[in-house]
Parts: sequence; C-alpha cells; structure tokens
Amino acid sequence: MDFDLVIRNGTVATASDVFKADVGVKGGTVAALGSGLAAGREEIDAEGLLVLPGGVDGHVHFDQPTGDESVMADDFLSGTRSAAFGGTTTVLPFACQQKGQSLRAAVEDYHRRAAGKPLIDYAFHLIVTDPTEQVLGQELPALIRDGYTSFKIYMTYDALKLNDRQILEVLDIARSEGAMVMMHAENADCIAWLTERLERAGQTAPFFHGVSRPRVAEREATHRAISLAELVDVPILIVHVSGADAVEQIRWAQGRGLRIYAETCPQYLFLTADDLGGAGGDAGFEGAKCICSPPPRDAANQRVIWDGLTGGTFQLFSSDHAPFRFDGPGGKKVNGEKAPFRCVPNGIPGVETRLPLLFSEGVMKGRMELTKFVELTSTNPACMYGLHPRKGTIAVGSDADIAIWDPARKVTITNAILHHEVDYTPYEGIEVTGWPVVTLSRGEVVCRDGALLASPGRGAFLPCGLPAPARPKGAPAPALPF
Amino acid sequence: MDFDLVIRNGTVATASDVFKADVGVKGGTVAALGSGLAAGREEIDAEGLLVLPGGVDGHVHFDQPTGDESVMADDFLSGTRSAAFGGTTTVLPFACQQKGQSLRAAVEDYHRRAAGKPLIDYAFHLIVTDPTEQVLGQELPALIRDGYTSFKIYMTYDALKLNDRQILEVLDIARSEGAMVMMHAENADCIAWLTERLERAGQTAPFFHGVSRPRVAEREATHRAISLAELVDVPILIVHVSGADAVEQIRWAQGRGLRIYAETCPQYLFLTADDLGGAGGDAGFEGAKCICSPPPRDAANQRVIWDGLTGGTFQLFSSDHAPFRFDGPGGKKVNGEKAPFRCVPNGIPGVETRLPLLFSEGVMKGRMELTKFVELTSTNPACMYGLHPRKGTIAVGSDADIAIWDPARKVTITNAILHHEVDYTPYEGIEVTGWPVVTLSRGEVVCRDGALLASPGRGAFLPCGLPAPARPKGAPAPALPF
Amino acid sequence: MDFDLVIRNGTVATASDVFKADVGVKGGTVAALGSGLAAGREEIDAEGLLVLPGGVDGHVHFDQPTGDESVMADDFLSGTRSAAFGGTTTVLPFACQQKGQSLRAAVEDYHRRAAGKPLIDYAFHLIVTDPTEQVLGQELPALIRDGYTSFKIYMTYDALKLNDRQILEVLDIARSEGAMVMMHAENADCIAWLTERLERAGQTAPFFHGVSRPRVAEREATHRAISLAELVDVPILIVHVSGADAVEQIRWAQGRGLRIYAETCPQYLFLTADDLGGAGGDAGFEGAKCICSPPPRDAANQRVIWDGLTGGTFQLFSSDHAPFRFDGPGGKKVNGEKAPFRCVPNGIPGVETRLPLLFSEGVMKGRMELTKFVELTSTNPACMYGLHPRKGTIAVGSDADIAIWDPARKVTITNAILHHEVDYTPYEGIEVTGWPVVTLSRGEVVCRDGALLASPGRGAFLPCGLPAPARPKGAPAPALPF
Amino acid sequence: MDFDLVIRNGTVATASDVFKADVGVKGGTVAALGSGLAAGREEIDAEGLLVLPGGVDGHVHFDQPTGDESVMADDFLSGTRSAAFGGTTTVLPFACQQKGQSLRAAVEDYHRRAAGKPLIDYAFHLIVTDPTEQVLGQELPALIRDGYTSFKIYMTYDALKLNDRQILEVLDIARSEGAMVMMHAENADCIAWLTERLERAGQTAPFFHGVSRPRVAEREATHRAISLAELVDVPILIVHVSGADAVEQIRWAQGRGLRIYAETCPQYLFLTADDLGGAGGDAGFEGAKCICSPPPRDAANQRVIWDGLTGGTFQLFSSDHAPFRFDGPGGKKVNGEKAPFRCVPNGIPGVETRLPLLFSEGVMKGRMELTKFVELTSTNPACMYGLHPRKGTIAVGSDADIAIWDPARKVTITNAILHHEVDYTPYEGIEVTGWPVVTLSRGEVVCRDGALLASPGRGAFLPCGLPAPARPKGAPAPALPF
Repeated sequence: MDFDLVIRNGTVATASDVFKADVGVKGGTVAALGSGLAAGREEIDAEGLLVLPGGVDGHVHFDQPTGDESVMADDFLSGTRSAAFGGTTTVLPFACQQKGQSLRAAVEDYHRRAAGKPLIDYAFHLIVTDPTEQVLGQELPALIRDGYTSFKIYMTYDALKLNDRQILEVLDIARSEGAMVMMHAENADCIAWLTERLERAGQTAPFFHGVSRPRVAEREATHRAISLAELVDVPILIVHVSGADAVEQIRWAQGRGLRIYAETCPQYLFLTADDLGGAGGDAGFEGAKCICSPPPRDAANQRVIWDGLTGGTFQLFSSDHAPFRFDGPGGKKVNGEKAPFRCVPNGIPGVETRLPLLFSEGVMKGRMELTKFVELTSTNPACMYGLHPRKGTIAVGSDADIAIWDPARKVTITNAILHHEVDYTPYEGIEVTGWPVVTLSRGEVVCRDGALLASPGRGAFLPCGLPAPARPKGAPAPALPF
Repeated sequence: MDFDLVIRNGTVATASDVFKADVGVKGGTVAALGSGLAAGREEIDAEGLLVLPGGVDGHVHFDQPTGDESVMADDFLSGTRSAAFGGTTTVLPFACQQKGQSLRAAVEDYHRRAAGKPLIDYAFHLIVTDPTEQVLGQELPALIRDGYTSFKIYMTYDALKLNDRQILEVLDIARSEGAMVMMHAENADCIAWLTERLERAGQTAPFFHGVSRPRVAEREATHRAISLAELVDVPILIVHVSGADAVEQIRWAQGRGLRIYAETCPQYLFLTADDLGGAGGDAGFEGAKCICSPPPRDAANQRVIWDGLTGGTFQLFSSDHAPFRFDGPGGKKVNGEKAPFRCVPNGIPGVETRLPLLFSEGVMKGRMELTKFVELTSTNPACMYGLHPRKGTIAVGSDADIAIWDPARKVTITNAILHHEVDYTPYEGIEVTGWPVVTLSRGEVVCRDGALLASPGRGAFLPCGLPAPARPKGAPAPALPF
Repeated sequence: MDFDLVIRNGTVATASDVFKADVGVKGGTVAALGSGLAAGREEIDAEGLLVLPGGVDGHVHFDQPTGDESVMADDFLSGTRSAAFGGTTTVLPFACQQKGQSLRAAVEDYHRRAAGKPLIDYAFHLIVTDPTEQVLGQELPALIRDGYTSFKIYMTYDALKLNDRQILEVLDIARSEGAMVMMHAENADCIAWLTERLERAGQTAPFFHGVSRPRVAEREATHRAISLAELVDVPILIVHVSGADAVEQIRWAQGRGLRIYAETCPQYLFLTADDLGGAGGDAGFEGAKCICSPPPRDAANQRVIWDGLTGGTFQLFSSDHAPFRFDGPGGKKVNGEKAPFRCVPNGIPGVETRLPLLFSEGVMKGRMELTKFVELTSTNPACMYGLHPRKGTIAVGSDADIAIWDPARKVTITNAILHHEVDYTPYEGIEVTGWPVVTLSRGEVVCRDGALLASPGRGAFLPCGLPAPARPKGAPAPALPF
Repeated sequence: MDFDLVIRNGTVATASDVFKADVGVKGGTVAALGSGLAAGREEIDAEGLLVLPGGVDGHVHFDQPTGDESVMADDFLSGTRSAAFGGTTTVLPFACQQKGQSLRAAVEDYHRRAAGKPLIDYAFHLIVTDPTEQVLGQELPALIRDGYTSFKIYMTYDALKLNDRQILEVLDIARSEGAMVMMHAENADCIAWLTERLERAGQTAPFFHGVSRPRVAEREATHRAISLAELVDVPILIVHVSGADAVEQIRWAQGRGLRIYAETCPQYLFLTADDLGGAGGDAGFEGAKCICSPPPRDAANQRVIWDGLTGGTFQLFSSDHAPFRFDGPGGKKVNGEKAPFRCVPNGIPGVETRLPLLFSEGVMKGRMELTKFVELTSTNPACMYGLHPRKGTIAVGSDADIAIWDPARKVTITNAILHHEVDYTPYEGIEVTGWPVVTLSRGEVVCRDGALLASPGRGAFLPCGLPAPARPKGAPAPALPF
C-alpha cells in the first residue's frame, strides 16, 4: 500500500489498547496500523512518543454572543488554534439561541461566524433557550436530522434558563428523536437569593461568587434534572459537575439503572475556592480570573471528582473553555475593576491546557491508565455526540486526527506559551510532564513543535450522527457495518 | 508485508472501536490492520462477519480435584475444545491447593493435568485454602513472580474457606506483591445453619439449594470482603455476583472510591430460582442441573445484574464453568438421585455458551454496544489478570486470538451441539442470534464451521503479568512501551 | 381535693406510659392522676377502657375558600363535630391567603368563618400563597408573634404554589421567627405536563389522576424542599407523604443530621391506586371519591409508610381532611359526572376515621405500641405546633382533652355512622376494633356513646407557641417551667 | 389520700411531658400526681427543681469475673452507690458465662456476688459465651422465662466471642422466646491482625489501642450483625456504637424496616482518640485511662453520634461502666506500667457521670429536649429490657424511683466527688450544669445532698418481662392492662 503519511515507531493508544505500531494514513484517514509499514510519502518518526487520538473537546465556547457587554476573546480561528496546540482535533462549540430567535437562525449565524476560520474539524451543539411550539415541533427535530444532535439547556442564568415544564418538553423531543441533552444543573433561585443577600452585606468580591453557588444548589438541580429525565425516560448528560453532592446524586441514579451521564472539567481538579481570592474586604480582583460556574470547591471535593473520573461516574472530561480576557474589552473587568462578582463574565479558558493537565496528573502520576485518558478526552465525547468512529480513535477508516505526545517533556504552563486570545490562564505556573508535539487533522500537520502549519478555514463542519448512549435502552442496536 | 494469514473484509471490534478492516497475521500475532492489505499465505473471507478478539474466560474449572466423590467431566482437552467452539481463546482455570498441600505442589500437579491437552492458551489462577506461614511468606510471593498473579479465596465451603484473619493475610500479600484476589463471597455459617434447618424439615430437593443461600448471605460476605480489603487498602474482585443486595454493596464501595471490582456470569442473567425445580415434595431432581453457588435469583435481580453489566458495576463476564455431569460417574447424582441438595456437586457448565448468550441478548437486543461486549468478555479479563495486550484485543503486536462471528446466524442451543463432556446444558432450547464460526489461536484455526482443526497440546501456558487494576492508587504507572 | 370530674379506673396512656389511674379534672384541666382519687362532682367509669389524650389533628380543611366552584362541605361546626366523634379534641385548619390578599385579612376572614361554631378547641395554620414584601416583612412576623406559628406552602397547584425563590423567602422568615413551615411537595410542572399528555390521549378517568402525579414528582419536590431548607438552615415538615421515593429522601436528609420532619395520612396506609378505579374506558366515576394529592400508591408503598410510622421517619399522622361531597353542590361532580380528573376537587374526608383506623390496624394488630399511637396522633402534633403541654397529653396542668376508648368495640365504618357533611367515606366497609366512646374537651363531655352533648361555639381559639422542633439546633432551650 | 411521701412543687418530666406537679408516694410506688396533694408523712420541697424518673443504666459491669488478672473495682455496693449518686435507680449488670460453665451457674454465682450489697434495684443481663446444645435448648429458654430476658453476645475478645453460626443459634432462641440480644460489634480478626502488626512495629502505647480498632472493623461487624438478625428475622441491639460508619449501617437497616436498635455511651460524645495519648514514643501511660472498646473517635464522629441521639438512630444512652483502677491491684497497670495496650483491661468508669454529662451538654445546651433525655436514659432502657412501666417513668403505679435535679447547680467533675472505687474519672475537670441532689428508690431516699442514707442490700432483684421491642412485628400486642 502506498501511504500519504506514515507515523513510524510510536506507541499508539486507543481507549482500550496501547501498542507499538506504525500508522499509515491515506486520503486523510487511517489506512493501516502495523509494524514495518511501507514507506509513506511523508514520514514522522514517533520513536519514544505516544500516538494518541486527537482530543475531542465536547464543551467549548468560541465567539458566542453573550447578550451583554462581555465578549468572547476567542473566535473559531484562535479557539481552534489553541485547541490544536493542546492536542485537540475536534471541538464542539455552541450555537446559542437568543430568546425570541429562531433556532435555525442561531445555527446559521453561528456558521457565518465560523466561516473561513477553523483549523480543525468542528460540530455544533445547540443551546435551546426559547422552546416555543415552533422550535419544539419543527426546528429542533429538523436540526437533529441535519446533524445537530445534542443540545444544552440551562437551569440557571436569567438569559438562558428553562423552567421545569420547558425542560420536560425539550427532553421529550430528545427522546423521540434520539438526541442528547446536556444540562447545566444549578438552582437559579438559590443563587439569586444568596447573591442578593451577599450584595446587601457588601460581600461582592470574587470570592463570594463561590459562596453564592453552594454545592447544595448544584445538588438540588442535579437531582431535579435526574428526576425529569427519569419521568420522560430519556438519557441526559450533566455537564461540568463540580461537587461531591452532585456526584452522590449521579451515582445514586446510575445505580438505579438510569442512564445519567456526567462530565467534569479541569477547573474541578486543579482549582479551589481559594483561587477566587480571599473573603477579606481588601481582597483584590485577581480572583475574577477563576470565576466560572459552578465554582471550584475544595480539596476534598477534588478527590471525589478524581474518583469519579477513574471509577466510571464521569464519561467525559471537557474544558468548558469560556474565553473572557481579564483586562481589555469585553473581559472580566468589563463592568469595572471593582465590579461585584455578579457582573463578572462567567467562565475561564482551558481548551489548550485540558489534555496536558490531565495527562500529567492523571496518567503520569498513576491515577489512571492511558487508555482511560483517551476514553475520557476523545473516544467518549466522540461517541456521546455521534462522531465516533470517524473521530475519537485511531482505527482503520477513522479520520487521521492524531496528537503525538512526548510523555517526558516537562513544561511549565504560562499564558505566554498558549495560543488563545485570553490574557491569562488559571493554571499559570503549574509544571506538567507530557506535552503534545505534533497535531494532525485528517492527516495534515496542523501544528508541530510550536509552529502553526495549517491555514484558517481548513477545518470542516461535522454533522453528527445520533448519539449511541441516547438510544432507548433495550432498543435494537443500529445496523452494524456488516 | 507478507502475511501468514489475512482475514479480509470483516468488521473488527475492540473494546473501544468497531471498524471495517483486514487483519494481517504473521508469526502468530497481529501484524497489521488495514484496508486492502497484501495477500496472505492463507486468507479468510470475513465479509459480513464480525472479527472479535477471542474471548478470555477468567473463571473456569477444568479437571480440578474436588476432594470428594464428584468429578469434573471436562479436562484441559474437552474444556478448551468447548471454549474454542464458543469463541473463547484463553481460559484461566484454578490450581487449587488442598489443605495441607504446598501451593507450589498444587501448581505442579495442575501443570501435569494440563500437559499435552490444551487446544488454546491458558493461565492459572491459584486457589489458596491453607495460607500457612510458608505459603504466605515464601510460596505465594514466589509464585506471583513466576506469573501466577491472581488467586481466589473462598468465604464458604468447608474444604476451601478462609477465616477473616486468613483473608487479611492473603490480601496483605496481594497488596505487597501487586496481585489480584478473587473472592467467593457467601457467608458459610448462614448457609450451614439454614441447610441444617431445611434438612431437619425434610426440605432437601434441589429447589432448597437456593433457599439455603439467600441474598443476605451473599450481601453480608460482600460487605465483609469490601471491609477487609478497605482495611488492607488493596483492590479485590468479587466473583460471580448474583443478587441486587451484593450489587448495592459493591456500588456503595465503588462510590466511596474503593477499587472493588466485580464479575458476573450467564447463570445470573438467564436462570432463576424456578430452574431449580419446585418446592413441592414431588419435585424431581431435574433442578439439580442448575445447582450452582451463589444460586440463580429472580427476574428482578436479573435486571439489576443487567444494569450492572451495562452501567459499569461489573468489569467481567465469565462462565464459572464447573463441569459436573447430570448422569454418570462423579456427577450431580453421585450421591444418589434423591440426594439432598447439600450432597449435589455445585456448579454448571457454560464455557461454550457464555459468549453466544451475551451476544444475542446483550448486543443483538440492544442492551449493550458491541464494544462493551468485547470489553466484558475479553479485554477486561485480560487486563485484570495481566494478560493484556497480549490477549484480549485485536491490536498490532497482540496474539492473533480471534473469533469470527456470524451475527445473523440463528442457533438453538442444545447439548447436542456443544463440545464439553457434560451431558446437559442449563440453557437447552434457548435460541440465540449470532454464533462464532471460526476461532483462531495465535493465527491458527482451531475450529471452523463446527470442525476441530487443531491438535491437543498446542495451547501454551501463559505466565501472567501484574494486574493493572491492582496497582496501588496514585502509584506511578509502569513504564509505557516507549 | 375536690374534683369537677373523675374518670375512674381507666387505663391512661401518654406518649411514654400506659398505667391504670383515676384522672381528676378541675377547672378544665387535669388536676390529679392517682389511684383512689376522691370523688368528683361528676364521675365516669372507665373500667376496661382506655383514657387517651384527645387527638390533635394537625392537618384539616374546614370551610376553606377554594377559589373555584368546589365547596367544602364541612364548616367549623360539622368539622369539629366529626373530629370529636372520632376522638379528636384539637384541630388545626388553614387560614388560606388568596393571591393579592393580605395575610392578616385571610386570618380575620377565617376567624369570622369559625365564629360561634367550633365544638372543640382549634388553632390556625396559615397558607402563604403571595409572599409580598409586605407579607414577609410585616404581616408574617406579626402573625407569628400573635400565635399563628406554622404555615403551609405549596409546590404545586397554580392557585397556591410558590416558586423556589419565594420558598426561600418564606423559609428565611420561619428561621428568624422560629416558626414551622409545612410543605406540600409535588413538582407542579411534571404534573401539568403529564396531565396534558393524558388529556390529549383521552385518559381522563379518575384512575389517571394517580398516573398524573407519579412518585418521582413527589420525590423531586421532596428533595428540593430539603435542599432549600438546608440552604436556609431551618427545619421543615413535609406533609402527607405518600411514597417510598419521598421517604428515601427524607431518611437520607434525617441521616445527615438535618431536621426534616414528616407527616403521613390514613389514605397512604389504607387506599391504593386501585381505589381510583380502573384504567379501562368504561371505568366509572366512583374512583373520584379517592382523588387526593399526592394520590394513594400501592401495597409496597403502604408497607414503606408503615415502617416509616413505626420506625421514626414520620413524626405526625394527620387526616388531611378535605371535605368534598361526591354528589351535590361543590362536590366531586361539580364539573360534571364525566369531568376529567383535572377538574375534580382534590381531597377526601377523614377527620373522624383517622384515629380508629390507626388504632385498629396499628395498635390492635401489634404494629405499634399504644404509646406510639398517642405520640403520632396527639403529642407530636401538639409539640410541633406549639400547643404542648396544654394539648397532646394527659398530665397535671394540661387541658382535660381526653378520649375514652373501648378497645374491644368492633365497628364497621360506614358513612352513615360518621358526623361530617360529606356523603361518603373512602373507608366504607372497613371493620375496626376499638372506638372512642366518650370525648371530653377541657373536662366537658362533647360526645358520649354517639350523642353530641356540647354546644356550637364552645371551642376556643388557641394561639400557638413557637414550635419546639423549629428552635435553632444547639440553641439554649427555652426556660423550663422552674 | 394519705401519702408516705410527697415531693412538692417540683417540675416533673417523663419521656413525653414536662409539668409542674406534686408527686405522692405510697407503699413505694407513685400513688398520685397532682397539684396541691394532701400532706405526706414525709415531704420534700422540690420548688425550682426537676423531678425525673431515676436513670436506668442498661449497661454496667460490677464485680464481673474477667478470667484474667484484671479485677473490677466496683462491686454491687460501690457500683450501686455510685449509680445512685449519679441519679440512677436501676442498673443492669451482666451475669457472664465462662466458657465451659453452665449459664445457670453463672447466674447463681452472680446472685451470690450481689447478695446483701445493692442500694438500688437491679436486673441481670446474661452474657452467652458458650452456646452449647444444653445452653440453647434448655438453660437459656428457662432463664428467659425466669426473668433474664436480655443477653449480650460478643463478636470480639477471644474469651467471649461467638462465631457467626453461634450467633445465629442464639438469635434463633431470642426470636422464639421473645428475648433481646445485645451485640458488641467489632471484627475480632481485624483487630488481632492490626494488633500484631502494631506490636511488631513497637507501637504499643495506649494511643495504638485506637488504631487497632478502626471504624471499619466496627462497621463490618455491625453490618454482619444486621445481616444475621435479618436472616433470623429478629430484632437486635447494637451496643456502644462509636463511629459514623456503624451509624450509617444502622440507619440503612432501620430505613429498610428492620428492627435494629442502638445504644451509645458518654465516651463517644466526650472523649476522642486524643485522650488515649499521643503516638510518639515518649507518650505516657496516662492514655490507658481512656482505653475502652470500641475506642473514642474524633470530633466529626462525635457530631454524628449526637445527631444519632437526637434524631432517633439511638434508643439508649448507657454508661458501659467498666471499673478498672488506674493504679493498684487488677487495674490498668496490672500488667505493668509499660504494658502494651493489648494487655490493658478494656473499659472505663462512668455510671455516676453518665446523666450529668448528657444533661449538661444535651439539655442545658439546647441539643435535646428534657423529654428526650428521660427517654434515652430511663424510659427506653426500661422498655427495652422489660422493666417498664415499673421502672423508667413517673406514672401512677410505677415504682417511686426518682432523681431530683437542681438544673442550675454547677459542678466540676473530679474523681474526688465520685462514689465508685475507681481511682480516676476520664471526665476529670469537666464543668457541668445540673446535678441530681436527691435520689429515691421505691420512695426511700438513697442519697441526698451528698450523703448516703440507705443500707446495703436494700436493692431488689428485678425479674424482667419480655422486651416490647423484641415482639415479632405485626404480632398482636400483649394484653393491655384493661
């Protein structure tokens, strides 16, 4: 066989196996895995390196209209650039419906924002904020069939949140169409009530962002989400789980045989409430850099999240990259440097650091197998969102989306080495072991040794298939490819 | 490349992926996966068929001395023959120490029993029944280093059981040596107490075997096993879990971050207490065919076991093949046709039916993905017992242990079509969809379309590596192969 | 001492003791308990009878405006009459705020409705439906201090329900004032969503009332109520708990040290979904007689409720008497005989049968001690609502509110023997053992051997003290009476 | 009526009520409760004082043969003296069978030890250590019928422990006879295994006593005890529960409707592992004073125990008084001052401090109602052991066993003010508010204002009735006294 490219002598890993093999690429897909493959037109020597499926980041926000003065610093170019340098080859940002807007219009607008920019392949999740009859009865089913098969709904944020009735309606469509619903589970009223009390008490420093969103508010919404899904009899995915209480609910539900899936993010392994700054009156605004929702908790909760990752509670590890600058237009200080936490844009960057952080602390420190790392960061998100086996693995016929890692390289994370447009990273100064040195998308080298080698717009939009986990339990599996 | 064998055009599945590819075999291992591989010296056309890693049956009993009048009908020849026809390519029977016997002697004896017979590769678990100072301090550590890295201990059966103190000693060795302990968790005293009462009441028909081993006895021992492992801080594997109560304990432990692994078997998905016959005085002895321990439960418990398989509670699906004939020497009637259940040999055959039953009811009926099937029946047992990636997958460098399945073939299970030496199957009459049509071991066709094509003794003994799941949590991973 | 009345030779029971004693009454209170007390001006021979604290029914609806066409058939006269004949001497109906109405006005209106009618003493719970700033900031605190120390809030029913934010505000007042909040925990949106679907499917017979309010909707709201109370750090009381799922949540919360109290009712011990009629198209309207919310479940749930009563999960056993006639104005058929279940007034009568049913099935059948019966039906509600020790016991200084029971009397419950104005009882035909034969209120015989001997209006309004269970945990107990 | 004694103007409390009343005593029993009772031959002015049922201490060890060199310092005289000064009027020590001994002989021996000594009334629990056929088939049933209706069994201590089979046999007798089984739940093998390892490591200071008996060993045995009781279908009582893990098991069982009762003791509220001394090599032997089993835990576990007391998990609060001196013959130093913890007699004194400690920290600090205090310390143990209503309450007809408390008296606990023969108290230096100032037994003043006024031997042996909680669930209640 003649190959366009052979990655030679590396150690290949999938979600189930780690083995030494050459990878032969042809026409953008993996054509062969073998030892001693014939020469390719191009060759990459991966001796001593790991050849992993490129990361699939199932939860990123790029160039998403926020409806207020805040502005996301990353668009589809800088966002995918940052992703690629971090070993990620597929991203799923969100086409977010504004209230009053047609969902189809939101999707079209988002395609326009993407046009000409992506360096790697991408699919869209939808965010449903206004489930009118028109949206539920026509737009949503049609969009699902067009390849927008997952959507996020919010239980908090005034501009986004659905009430229980609306959630039921959305879940019902997901059930009949076989789509996957992602849920942001925090109780809006609890947060609003606490926030007002904190503000009345003058407790508005970034630290109090965490106080305003306690674990019980996340737990309540998680239990409610589970209950609504149980009523409708449909799987759901609880995203960005932060605390032990929510984990307890999720495990309880899973143990009862419900198909409740869960995602967590680096901020719940690597940050704590301390990173939001102190409670004292003179606490600076620096903590705003770590304002995200749900907020980081403490060391004990971090341990529970780790156990959930290695023990099967979580299926997904995503970044929830939400790129707001600290300084400058549309950023954390958009409402002033002393703005109460309520006015600070929620979200932190992380699309580039997601994989190195987990690789270093997870794989290299012996907390998880390399196969588990691949599963959580690539294979599972691809499966969950209907992109597998095209994405999420290194297998014959799959897209040659590959990250080549040097497991021995020590890197100290600083914002200077990252490729997003955000002016800080919450992980500044953390030293990691292991780093992606080459990233390929459909067989093309996107970046290598710190150099960007691909052109904007080469990334392709991916219509998603129906998510396997959303299939009714006990329903016949879809035809196997035989 | 020149291949000894190419399996062409099949649909290959691993624990993470399903893809269409040719499989090129050379020197007994998988040399390449690709589309359009060069011709092999031999070719198998797998168009329309599934190419799966051969099953790894982590729990079988062949030619094991029982210490009483019962005799196992299958030796290493008929046992591996039956396994191979059922799509299994690796088996792990038990070298069982007799009380008073050296463990090393038990292993040597068992090698003699195997010699010249196996058709497929095999490794040994140990059964530790007499953990003397000599055994614990010298034999066991030495045997672990020699490749006997997993051992079973019993909490029931007079001839086999250890007390808590002994269990702690064995777990402690497992911890320091990195071995895996399998535990049969039933409370011996509860069973003895109930059995005596049943006998005094004349309730000795096979049906009462189930009554004598209630779910609470399994739950208690499961909780105890978990507690002892928690004290020693070592992973364990609870084998052949039958009931919802034990599952509850296991999930509770897993949720607390403990590494408690679990196995279940076909009998807990496909049989119920009804299969043991009726409670009435005129109940026949037929139910003895389904006497095994723990006993089958009921439909509600079956559902919990299914949920545990698909939801991650169980890592392993094994047969616990224990081949006692119904009629004839050493079989179920060894103590007479009206023998009380206490005198009936415990165990049922199942090495050949394990995979077809799960494939049909699991994969074909949409309860689980094909990847999950491979994971539970092949990849996970290989990992758990230190045989992966040599066994348990189809990956470059792995042994070419492959089962080719016709997913459309409908077969009615009857004992006549099976290849063990047992004179019945508990699954008589069940129709399944999907059947293994070719089984290869290290690239050699062992059986094909019902014909046995290999010679006794070709199967090789496999020294096992240290089980990955038994590594201390947070300990550095062993060096990756780079 | 000279007594107005001596009840002689009976067996007295309190929540802690059962003993043989004479009870001497003077000035309406218990002046002495002893053997061989001096003669009273009046004497009652209680030889062979039980002398129990009169029941305190902490959950009844009398003459409560419903806001629609339905009309409660019992006012303060017939309601208290029925209560008294059933052995109850204190009732707590609800002064229900209409949306837009001042809470104080609702209380005043309810006093007018009561005026001149009650035969026994009574206190008011409030129902808060419109927690405006005025209500929360001024009316509610003032009313609490005036002796209205408990209030109910609803998580369902359009006309009554509060959203989470409003619930938090109400709980916050309860916390600062030391009041007790009773919560009707069912998820409104789930019910509305199911109801619409059922209606669209033409499934509107009474049976489907139960289907529209599944256990998961009760569980969700229960978990949410617990979470909101946990956030505010205040005790709450979940009323009329019907199902095992809600019980699980309550026990989970109690086990975490939260002060979550719970009430159940006869309908969850004695009725099941079957009593709502069949699912078939020709099902009659008879099942409407048992329409209440939450709805009756099944036998397995009944067992869980029994266990909760005897095992300490429940503190209160109340009637939730909601007196709608079957025929006639304002009753179950107010919207027509074929009205969909959604249009049928919710609620069933039970103030008179509450005690005999529990006494017979609980005490006489050995499920609970007589002391537990007294605790659940009299002492605990008196404590929970700040009426103890004036009410809820037979102790020196307490009001002589006493029910004398013949524990041997067998009675078949039929509506003909009851004293409410409802034209049916859901318990028609049930035979009970044990019946109250004399009821005294403050030493006056209200009814005796089926005859009413008291005059309307003699019942006094009881301002309530602060509920003991609502005191902040770890706060100093209020001064003891020494 | 003419009374032998009237306690005038005090505040009387029972497990359900607190009320102001005079208590008239005649013939040793309570003849009347009332206001303004006629004069008694003797009068006690209790104005400003609390009149409580005398404590029932359901778990004490007096003059119990230990089988080794250790000797209990308190006999029936000093033990009951100490009890009486601490407000306790009934004690239940243990007639302990030695292995090989007849149970009847153990009882007779224990009667001889008691003869002529007790100052207050007493009953015997049995300790069954050798459940031979003779013991189970004849002695035990006969003893139960003679009024020895509760017995303790041990899951640890070589000299005492039963195996699971023996436990089942004993539970079975309890079930058929209606007796109550108390269980010491710690896993003996875990403790032995840890102890040996600690000893090998030279870690033998008192501190390591706690390390050798971790919470998981208590949890395991608790789960096992529950399981065995569930199998036999009989209630049991888990005594001296120390840790959160055991509490979790108990609540789990109670929530499933099982009748699992539980006791805790002052040491689990007032001591922690720190009281056993430090882990350092120079740690003194002082910590031996707090060696008891299970050992004290930490502050977080104390909170769980408090929650269990107030929230209904525990029914009993006992002392587990085990009187070993620190210095002197048979005491903590019996095996030398540097003796490893394994050789130190297990147990601490507490019969006199039990009530004041709980009263002060529980009632006076607002953690529990006074009624709950009475319930846990007097009424419930009387009920649990078949002594109610003769003991455990102040009700007409009950024995006039009364403790008069000054709730305002502040006392600093030092061993100098106590009346046992032990030379230390673990609670040295703790200041409490509230102290018993007069103790009456059957109407006789035993001690008053620090003076002992009764004569040895006046205390009577109490044959116990069948424990109410041990009645089969759903079985008809025993005839009420009417």
